[in-house]
Amino acid sequence: MTRHGISLLPDCRPERRSATAYYRDVLAISRLADTAGLDYVKMTEHYLGAYGGYCPSPLTFLAAVAAQTSRIRLMTGALLPAFHHPVQLAAHIAQVDALSGGRVDVGFGRAWLPYEFEALGVPMDESRARYEATIKAVIRLWTEEKVTEDTPFFSFRDATSLPPVVQRPHPPVWGAAVRSPESFQWLGENGFGVMLALAPVRQQAGISRHLVDLYTDTFREHHGEDAQHRIALSTPLYVAETDAAAHRIAEPLYREYLSVWTQAASSWKDTRSSQYAGYEAMGRTDARELRGFDVRRQGTAVIGSPESVVEQIHALRESYGVDTFLWNVDFGGADLAVMEPSLRLFVDKVLPKL
Amino acid sequence: MTRHGISLLPDCRPERRSATAYYRDVLAISRLADTAGLDYVKMTEHYLGAYGGYCPSPLTFLAAVAAQTSRIRLMTGALLPAFHHPVQLAAHIAQVDALSGGRVDVGFGRAWLPYEFEALGVPMDESRARYEATIKAVIRLWTEEKVTEDTPFFSFRDATSLPPVVQRPHPPVWGAAVRSPESFQWLGENGFGVMLALAPVRQQAGISRHLVDLYTDTFREHHGEDAQHRIALSTPLYVAETDAAAHRIAEPLYREYLSVWTQAASSWKDTRSSQYAGYEAMGRTDARELRGFDVRRQGTAVIGSPESVVEQIHALRESYGVDTFLWNVDFGGADLAVMEPSLRLFVDKVLPKL
Repeated sequence: MTRHGISLLPDCRPERRSATAYYRDVLAISRLADTAGLDYVKMTEHYLGAYGGYCPSPLTFLAAVAAQTSRIRLMTGALLPAFHHPVQLAAHIAQVDALSGGRVDVGFGRAWLPYEFEALGVPMDESRARYEATIKAVIRLWTEEKVTEDTPFFSFRDATSLPPVVQRPHPPVWGAAVRSPESFQWLGENGFGVMLALAPVRQQAGISRHLVDLYTDTFREHHGEDAQHRIALSTPLYVAETDAAAHRIAEPLYREYLSVWTQAASSWKDTRSSQYAGYEAMGRTDARELRGFDVRRQGTAVIGSPESVVEQIHALRESYGVDTFLWNVDFGGADLAVMEPSLRLFVDKVLPKL
Repeated sequence: MTRHGISLLPDCRPERRSATAYYRDVLAISRLADTAGLDYVKMTEHYLGAYGGYCPSPLTFLAAVAAQTSRIRLMTGALLPAFHHPVQLAAHIAQVDALSGGRVDVGFGRAWLPYEFEALGVPMDESRARYEATIKAVIRLWTEEKVTEDTPFFSFRDATSLPPVVQRPHPPVWGAAVRSPESFQWLGENGFGVMLALAPVRQQAGISRHLVDLYTDTFREHHGEDAQHRIALSTPLYVAETDAAAHRIAEPLYREYLSVWTQAASSWKDTRSSQYAGYEAMGRTDARELRGFDVRRQGTAVIGSPESVVEQIHALRESYGVDTFLWNVDFGGADLAVMEPSLRLFVDKVLPKL
């Protein structure tokens, strides 16, 4: 069975859309997703830029969603362990697991925006080591009574984490992976789910079937054929009655999303990191190129009438072996009036055909 | 006009009360406080021990309260700046300010439990410097366009914090103060409110009128007679129809609270810090002494019939010049069945007489 959820990432410029209006609308769309029977609401962590900067704490947003919903699962995608102490991170996730009665799925990411590392004083070159060490410590804090850690990044003795996680042994863990084979392999080894996200420019989307297979093979090798590997994919979605109507509404939003993303990615212009092979290419996306950008040919969104969206989803499922789609519905600073009809059409006319 | 709110601090031992039950009940009591017209819901930040450990993130809890209430103000008491990076802290507070439509009051505290500093790897002896530098940076991030900081604790260049705070120039700021004259003076100089909390053993309650006057005088000297200094006080409250009934219900809870507090404070046994003069005395409270503890004579709670509670509140108001009471209603792991009748009596029979 394929699962579906909504994936949120505020890409609002303050001068265009206030955070109060943003949160009012994404809480409303989360309630709709809950009552419509979707499986997940996912939210990201970012800082400083318009790209995600309205949400430094996905856990805090998800606590608000928990307070207004009864069954939908609350997913972080991604929490950035490199920017947190494991004692705080383990406790914070467990707090939301408790508040929500055990509805948390935790997605972790390595973080990829140079300006976030710079401002928070975390060296980008130790990002992978810090990411892996922090996740390992968080899981120990959830599952062991007295935890002692001694790493270059943190050390503590005999820590007993509170509150206890509600889900035992611990909430489901996912990791974001885009283009680094090490990430896919590590997630498979550890038995975590993989969260794929397509970058907005198809040419730079990064993910290849080869990497997904590397994850699946590694997972099976370490956890056996019976264990359930998980592959989730986030990408923008817009559904309208016809292809033309869908494109008319979604394309300007997609261009806005792309423009905010490009601005964030441009901080790669002057950055090189051995731990982020290939990322520097993203700094090269030029604002001028975007003017001629053809959303249909060059974008990675799923846009169209219910019929054509069904087709596009089948293709994506085949391409990457996806079992969970996390539909980005708030791209381009879309408001509720734009998001709601699309999500309703998706629920009423697309889901039944999948 | 005196303002009133509820003050929450989970002191639950996991074997006695789950975090899910705790959060279900404190969300319910927060909704009651909202509809009853109280002014604040306040929540603390703590780690690892039963003393507050269920709530590592007051902002996350308050986001859930925001989602279920419409007017009550959301207060942190206290957020611990020493355990956060100012870029994350400023953004996280602003996120809840946005989510709640501008209902946040921020109370900061210096943190005082040695085991928290140890686990998080923050030297206790730099606690004051870190506290002051972080708050200063957070306020700059809220109010200036491009912020550069270079301190021993963090440094960043040209940071523009998102989301913008809803309340301008920024949410009201408070600081916790107990026994350090420097704290009272610093809060007065900066024009912040002061949050007093009475420790559970009267002899060690710490606060003296002299320290409160130091705050008030310093505030007036720096901000003039017209500016409004603010003095809030947190202490446990229990109201029942008669004094006897109130004591019968509240005393076992108060003893439990005291026992959890004593266990936390005992980490002062082997700790000395130049920045926490007098705190080491708290490590000396002996569990054996607690058996003969007389809640009426030795405790600091407000417990009794509506009439006697009115009297006790008048006395506290006089003693410390309090303008805002933050009533701790969840002490001793009290559940909703215990908290609710007391808060209703307080609203119906105490408030009208104040």
